[in-house]
Amino acid sequence: MKAIKEEIRIERAPVSKITEVDFNNLAFGSVYSDHMLVCDYKDGAWETPIITPYQPITLDPASKIFHYGQSIFEGMKAYKDSNGQIWLFRPLDNHKRFNISAKRLAIPEIPESHFIDGLTTLLRLEKDWVPTTAGSSLYIRPFMFASGKGFHASPADAYKFMVCFAPSGPYFSGKVKVLIEETYSRSANGGTGYAKAGGNYAGQFYPTQLAIAKGYNQVIWTDDNTHEFIEEAGAMNIFVRINDTLITAPVSDRILDGITRKSILTLAQDQGITTEIRKISVTEVVEAAQNGSLKEMFGAGTAAVISPITTFGFQGVDYDLPELQHSYATSLKKQITDIQYNRSEDKFGWRFKV
Amino acid sequence: MKAIKEEIRIERAPVSKITEVDFNNLAFGSVYSDHMLVCDYKDGAWETPIITPYQPITLDPASKIFHYGQSIFEGMKAYKDSNGQIWLFRPLDNHKRFNISAKRLAIPEIPESHFIDGLTTLLRLEKDWVPTTAGSSLYIRPFMFASGKGFHASPADAYKFMVCFAPSGPYFSGKVKVLIEETYSRSANGGTGYAKAGGNYAGQFYPTQLAIAKGYNQVIWTDDNTHEFIEEAGAMNIFVRINDTLITAPVSDRILDGITRKSILTLAQDQGITTEIRKISVTEVVEAAQNGSLKEMFGAGTAAVISPITTFGFQGVDYDLPELQHSYATSLKKQITDIQYNRSEDKFGWRFKV
Ligand SMILES: Cc1ncc(COP(=O)(O)O)c(C=O)c1O
Ligand SMILES: Cc1ncc(COP(=O)(O)O)c(C=O)c1O
Repeated sequence: MKAIKEEIRIERAPVSKITEVDFNNLAFGSVYSDHMLVCDYKDGAWETPIITPYQPITLDPASKIFHYGQSIFEGMKAYKDSNGQIWLFRPLDNHKRFNISAKRLAIPEIPESHFIDGLTTLLRLEKDWVPTTAGSSLYIRPFMFASGKGFHASPADAYKFMVCFAPSGPYFSGKVKVLIEETYSRSANGGTGYAKAGGNYAGQFYPTQLAIAKGYNQVIWTDDNTHEFIEEAGAMNIFVRINDTLITAPVSDRILDGITRKSILTLAQDQGITTEIRKISVTEVVEAAQNGSLKEMFGAGTAAVISPITTFGFQGVDYDLPELQHSYATSLKKQITDIQYNRSEDKFGWRFKV
Repeated sequence: MKAIKEEIRIERAPVSKITEVDFNNLAFGSVYSDHMLVCDYKDGAWETPIITPYQPITLDPASKIFHYGQSIFEGMKAYKDSNGQIWLFRPLDNHKRFNISAKRLAIPEIPESHFIDGLTTLLRLEKDWVPTTAGSSLYIRPFMFASGKGFHASPADAYKFMVCFAPSGPYFSGKVKVLIEETYSRSANGGTGYAKAGGNYAGQFYPTQLAIAKGYNQVIWTDDNTHEFIEEAGAMNIFVRINDTLITAPVSDRILDGITRKSILTLAQDQGITTEIRKISVTEVVEAAQNGSLKEMFGAGTAAVISPITTFGFQGVDYDLPELQHSYATSLKKQITDIQYNRSEDKFGWRFKV
């Protein structure tokens, strides 16, 4: 990795807000740490990032972010071990995916140095903000958007890359009931579904609200053409266990290439669990639920970690998943969090010391 | 229409920027008038809009607009007639569509009064900003976005509705060469394509840049499943004239219900031109180009008005359209702009006096 030429300048907040935060009752992503990283793209180049007190952003009303949704983001977490050392999990993969998203959204790619040095410098400054309460962690939000202006529907000439931190509790509180979607869609073939583009998420809110009104927590998206194949959830990839085989859909231009997903596949394969990466039809899942071979369904993502699904709804019928003594979800969640929190050997080189 | 309860408060700019603007050399959407309209949604209700000097917006970095693309917009124009009277064109339809977009993006709908009174009050204040140079007009940009904050992927609890004005020249300068897209897509079945959602536009930039690099100005989108059917362009609906029949694709959940499109259909039908609203296959258009029955192709939208297409590219071959003495495009463009600028009878009640 090429280091940033100049040192990242730090402008410190005069007082910390940390004493106002109840670390035992953290919601997800709703309180923010004392500082943030900001890096501007102007005249064809990225400037040196700077760290400032967490503060409002000022933008021209014609900035393209307000009009054309030119924005991308990442979602990461920082973990503190029992010695107070802070770790990241596969952060270079987040950087790589960030630039994949950037390219699809016609946003300039950002060098690895700006991304990694930027957020690790910020992390070292904010180390006290990494929660140690069980189930909590520091959620890291790198994002990038069009600050350049104009009402012409074309890429902006200026961008802002920022990183903010939010000490967070679990993404889902309680059981996760999902609805398999039959009308709305998340992404098109040849679209932006594989990118973490802002607009992909806004488009999910309305159908998700309809599902919530029916008593579900989350939608499971299906392909937009036939609604016959299970793709992924709002911010999670989906795994299905039929008998003892763990199945997940292949990533595509419609499905995000989740880092949790691929880590789970590696862990499962490593311990001899049969895995299949293939299209999963709704019919197959319903039949498996009916004949008892459907053992588990769970979502996998940085925010939600591994979230077991207790019920799925389809065409007005709810299918309950069994409660297992020894579930893959529980075992895999323990393995992955043990690696993240430096409680176990890091066989695959996923931990990243800050 | 229910009027707004309180008067719209106007905070005047101390000096006007109007003398700095060269009204004879206007680009599209790149200079802005002296004032803007702002209206906040908080605690479940829209406040009374206010008019302030055009100025930067200040937002928390966790505002959902930066993360989840929760934003919509409209595109309208104001036209000044030879008596200096200002007119809008079917503005109630823009308001209706704005709320259709809002609903799909889980943004609270805005009352007609806020939208129409807001922008007409602003227009009366900014009347000197409406250009009178031929081919120029005042572009009106109502937009609405999530100002409420949080990293949880769910709708925001606060929104901003704003209107800005940009005196503008033509959207396209010169000939319009289009490329029929075979790989990328604009929208999914069950997606947000029928809404003017920010994210729909950002997703078009990269494929459009690839087309521009090949010498085209614009992409014509096809359905995401087969790429066999012509849908629409970046900010225009598409018309094809085969022999003397004018054909356009039906609107759907993937295609924006353009106000120019439906006005053209009405005008054409009114003068006895045979029109067809049906799926148009790429094969049909290519064959018509080859056998000489393809007479015209043009884009239709508020920004681009009616823009004749001179060439379309498909699978590496360019097909030139003939130059006609009496084209539908020229005649329909004259008719629609004559109505807009109050130069002809308003048979269909489309003009709206400001
Ligand atoms: C749409 C979508 N799918 C899946 C995931 C899971 O990806 P990861 O495991 O890299 O967090 C996310 C994000 O976190 C997502 O936004
Ligand atoms: C995607 C798209 N299609 C078509 C149009 C044309 O619609 P209208 O004629 O209402 O401007 C627009 C916008 O102006 C658009 O953004």
